[in-house]
Amino acid sequence: MRYVRFSHQGRPVLGVRTAEGVRVLGEETLESLLERGVDLATYGARAQGPLVQIGEQDYLPLMKKPGKIVCVGLNYADHTKESPYAQPDYPTLFPRFNSSLIGHNQPLVRPRISDTLDYEGEMAVVLKSGGRHIPKAQALQHVAGYALFNEGSVREYQFKSPQWTVGKNFDDTGAFGPDLVTADELPAGGKGLLLQTRVNGKVVQSANTEDMLFDVATIISTLSEAVTLEAGDVIVSGTPAGVGFGMDPKVYLKAGDVVEVSIEDIGTLVNPVVDEA
Amino acid sequence: MRYVRFSHQGRPVLGVRTAEGVRVLGEETLESLLERGVDLATYGARAQGPLVQIGEQDYLPLMKKPGKIVCVGLNYADHTKESPYAQPDYPTLFPRFNSSLIGHNQPLVRPRISDTLDYEGEMAVVLKSGGRHIPKAQALQHVAGYALFNEGSVREYQFKSPQWTVGKNFDDTGAFGPDLVTADELPAGGKGLLLQTRVNGKVVQSANTEDMLFDVATIISTLSEAVTLEAGDVIVSGTPAGVGFGMDPKVYLKAGDVVEVSIEDIGTLVNPVVDEA
Repeated sequence: MRYVRFSHQGRPVLGVRTAEGVRVLGEETLESLLERGVDLATYGARAQGPLVQIGEQDYLPLMKKPGKIVCVGLNYADHTKESPYAQPDYPTLFPRFNSSLIGHNQPLVRPRISDTLDYEGEMAVVLKSGGRHIPKAQALQHVAGYALFNEGSVREYQFKSPQWTVGKNFDDTGAFGPDLVTADELPAGGKGLLLQTRVNGKVVQSANTEDMLFDVATIISTLSEAVTLEAGDVIVSGTPAGVGFGMDPKVYLKAGDVVEVSIEDIGTLVNPVVDEA
Repeated sequence: MRYVRFSHQGRPVLGVRTAEGVRVLGEETLESLLERGVDLATYGARAQGPLVQIGEQDYLPLMKKPGKIVCVGLNYADHTKESPYAQPDYPTLFPRFNSSLIGHNQPLVRPRISDTLDYEGEMAVVLKSGGRHIPKAQALQHVAGYALFNEGSVREYQFKSPQWTVGKNFDDTGAFGPDLVTADELPAGGKGLLLQTRVNGKVVQSANTEDMLFDVATIISTLSEAVTLEAGDVIVSGTPAGVGFGMDPKVYLKAGDVVEVSIEDIGTLVNPVVDEA
């Protein structure tokens, strides 16, 4: 089942895609549905709301306030090679704050204080339940579904100190959507799917989610050795080679560019780039 | 004015300290009061609830779900010298997730997977309003108050990858409380206050908040160049020299230890150490 969040008659709503179009589910969020343990694989079938067309400009970030967003860095070997880092044998985790999120078709904003905005096409994983010390063999039972994420990074700020936090959290740089695809509709762990990023139509990243060094089950299990995971938490699973920072010379995003992130069977996330006002 | 959060008749409540004792304000949280713009410097005076004694075991984390918790690393020159890092000329920022928070007198938990739990005595700053591109000269107008924080760190996991996130986010390692002291009762920016950490009564960290390399106004202003800050966000402003990791040989916390963090005019935060069950 596929869920989308968008603006309908001026209010943020959740909808479910059906053969006839998108049916409005109401104003409840994915966060609150997950928190109260709703099974998203079946919940959408009961939608009684109106059937609507979503205007291209009406998409919103799939979730507005996940409990936490944990991103995985250096999770594809070829991307680590284009980075300044050696490959760690433990997941490299860093946060995104909710304040950085945008939706499908909303602009990625190049900040006025830096011209080093870069894309990172990734697969996001939304948890339906959590816990601590989750065995790897049971980890995928905690996944509600998968979505697309463009983990926009301001490289200059990412490397101003040993911690990447600021460069990974500029406002309007984390694109999340358009659809949450429930786990039952995809291969276990979201494995074996073609991930591609295009800038102005040109393919710049192309990889298979099978190539992650730490797969989704390993990330969940490893993180839960330290941290209690909760329903509605989001894991953003890393980007493959091909970012602008890795090119020679480096190529960064500029106003007017359009970035598309696609993953097979999940969809396409499109964001135009604009300069900060 | 001083606010505390504790368990009263089985429910989490907010209280305000008065000359007679702690008066119950009700079940509303600091997060929600700040979100709706309540002035904490005066709000507590209207408390009509019962006057109570807080049991030593009844304290709760001062806030349970701040919008974001941004910690500052390498913010005292003498602590940077005991770390593996050169001093950056930009704030080193990393997150704490809410899942790691504990209150005054609650146990700091040494995880079963590592024996490298360490203390970090720090001053926390709670924001009453936010925004983007906040000028340094106006930054302190956004501070609701100050509190104590023990930024417990599992060093082995902090350094397993280039990003410190996991080592800084083990469950039950982030002690926050007991009091929020509103900004009007302290020097501007919480400057010029003696900060001390004691382990089993012995002083291990002793510094002045004046010695921060990036002061509170600078941190707020700098972070807001990238990120929209919001009422209820928390900044944890860094630790001075004297952590166990910096000793030779290194000394880590073990079950039975008691860690106390004190800042002049703010109070003392006490946490015993226990092993994970």
